[in-house]
Amino acid sequence: MSIVVVGSVAFDDVTSPSGSMRGILGGAATYFALAASYFTQVRVVAVVGEDFATEQENVFKKRGIDTRGIERAAGKTFRWGGTYSDNLNEAKTNFTDLNVFEKFQPRIPKEYEDSEYLFLANIQPTLQADVRRHMNGVRLTGCDTMNYWINGARAELAETLKLVDVLLINDTETKMLAKESKLPRAAQKVLAMGPQALVIKHGEYGATIFFREGAFGIGRHPFRAPTLPLDEVKDPTGAGDSFAGGFMGYVASQQDLNREVLKRALFYGGVMGSFAVESFGTERLQSLTREEIDARFQIFRELTHLE
Amino acid sequence: MSIVVVGSVAFDDVTSPSGSMRGILGGAATYFALAASYFTQVRVVAVVGEDFATEQENVFKKRGIDTRGIERAAGKTFRWGGTYSDNLNEAKTNFTDLNVFEKFQPRIPKEYEDSEYLFLANIQPTLQADVRRHMNGVRLTGCDTMNYWINGARAELAETLKLVDVLLINDTETKMLAKESKLPRAAQKVLAMGPQALVIKHGEYGATIFFREGAFGIGRHPFRAPTLPLDEVKDPTGAGDSFAGGFMGYVASQQDLNREVLKRALFYGGVMGSFAVESFGTERLQSLTREEIDARFQIFRELTHLE
Repeated sequence: MSIVVVGSVAFDDVTSPSGSMRGILGGAATYFALAASYFTQVRVVAVVGEDFATEQENVFKKRGIDTRGIERAAGKTFRWGGTYSDNLNEAKTNFTDLNVFEKFQPRIPKEYEDSEYLFLANIQPTLQADVRRHMNGVRLTGCDTMNYWINGARAELAETLKLVDVLLINDTETKMLAKESKLPRAAQKVLAMGPQALVIKHGEYGATIFFREGAFGIGRHPFRAPTLPLDEVKDPTGAGDSFAGGFMGYVASQQDLNREVLKRALFYGGVMGSFAVESFGTERLQSLTREEIDARFQIFRELTHLE
Repeated sequence: MSIVVVGSVAFDDVTSPSGSMRGILGGAATYFALAASYFTQVRVVAVVGEDFATEQENVFKKRGIDTRGIERAAGKTFRWGGTYSDNLNEAKTNFTDLNVFEKFQPRIPKEYEDSEYLFLANIQPTLQADVRRHMNGVRLTGCDTMNYWINGARAELAETLKLVDVLLINDTETKMLAKESKLPRAAQKVLAMGPQALVIKHGEYGATIFFREGAFGIGRHPFRAPTLPLDEVKDPTGAGDSFAGGFMGYVASQQDLNREVLKRALFYGGVMGSFAVESFGTERLQSLTREEIDARFQIFRELTHLE
């Protein structure tokens, strides 16, 4: 089944302890689409500028990703520059040039409208809600957001959360959104805002999915998936979006939609996130095989499963 | 099989967001012994003062713990006071009155010398090494330490680490000991100092065990166990010692000593840690049943295992 992702396509300048790269393809929709493309048909809605060339478009096309929803606008593509020091969990933003992204008005191509799955990457909450209402027939909607909207557009975000099924955010965002410092309690408060499930990404400690009572079948408990203890993280950019791509992509590839599928999806999210950070930008995500992905899924299993 | 634990027995004054308790039984050896007592015969080596009464001794005796190694010295028992604010991972120490613990010279009773397992709770590293040399015939030695010794007695600690099989410390201690900010690399450096296995406790994110190449059988990967996302942590004091008690107690209860046993032990460590924090002091650890423990073990499994 196919999935529509709405979000940013960007050029990034990244510096980490492992090196430095300028003008590499990035953006939440890019990482998401590449990661999800190993599981299902992906359709992108984004905006780029005149500097977006065939070379970049081919990165999507080679993975069979539908780019008809990537609008070309007059001006430059969104650019972001960041530096990671030893604490790879947090980037210092050097610059953010929104460029054509500043006026981004997502337009869903007619051909995308039969898609069963939708992922709202991190954009202004009202735009997310508009897209969700437009794609009214979807089976499941995933959503990301960030501290900027949690603090600056809380009311709008609250409206959006009523329309989404799975929210994927990190520990800090969860606590901020719930105004509650204890994570399990914060999770319950966020679920009360609308989503059927909440995926909290813990960085190097993996991720936990919390379910609303009765959502996606029966079960008493949350579920936790690991990440891979990697010797070297080259570039953490896009790890969360790749996680979301693996998670949503796997869900969209399955006939059933139940807790067991979402638990496996949590593992695949971690798997795709772990690949993403092994090289700068999207390099590793461009050239994977499903065999490599499933081999790593098996490692994640060995990392957590008793005999 | 039986296990000897060497460490502190104390009276604690604890304040947390859930309330306040004064003069409650605490200390690393106490938490460890109670947690381990549900799995195996436990023998304590510690020192207490004249204020240590039958009431406290009965807490050990009711759990069948051997107290012949608890020496009574002239003076007062070790006292510690701490306050937890919303960040339950870290206590603010209000006072530390070492009292009789200041001159603690562990003496192993003759009757303890046939024990197959040894746990060196957090005391001065040279004392730990002395005990380990004295208990020369043990099958496996576990060890804890803290930033105070890592920074202040590094050379002595390095000698101790050559004599222990499993070191159980937290993320910060691992990085500090290895002088390396990336956890998987830090783990490898710590293993190179001596231990066959390193258990890193991640607080609310669970724990990971790293193995030395070839130690405890064959295997490629580390292993990670969760903790329980608890709605309310009443008193985090002793969580790490209870974790160690569950871990070591389970290991000592098994005939085999291999990676699969150590992985299960990691789960039991998390289980006992999760019980410990549910009430003030050792209250919850005094009155558990093996059925409750195994039911929670099952929850930990459901939390992490795919079908």
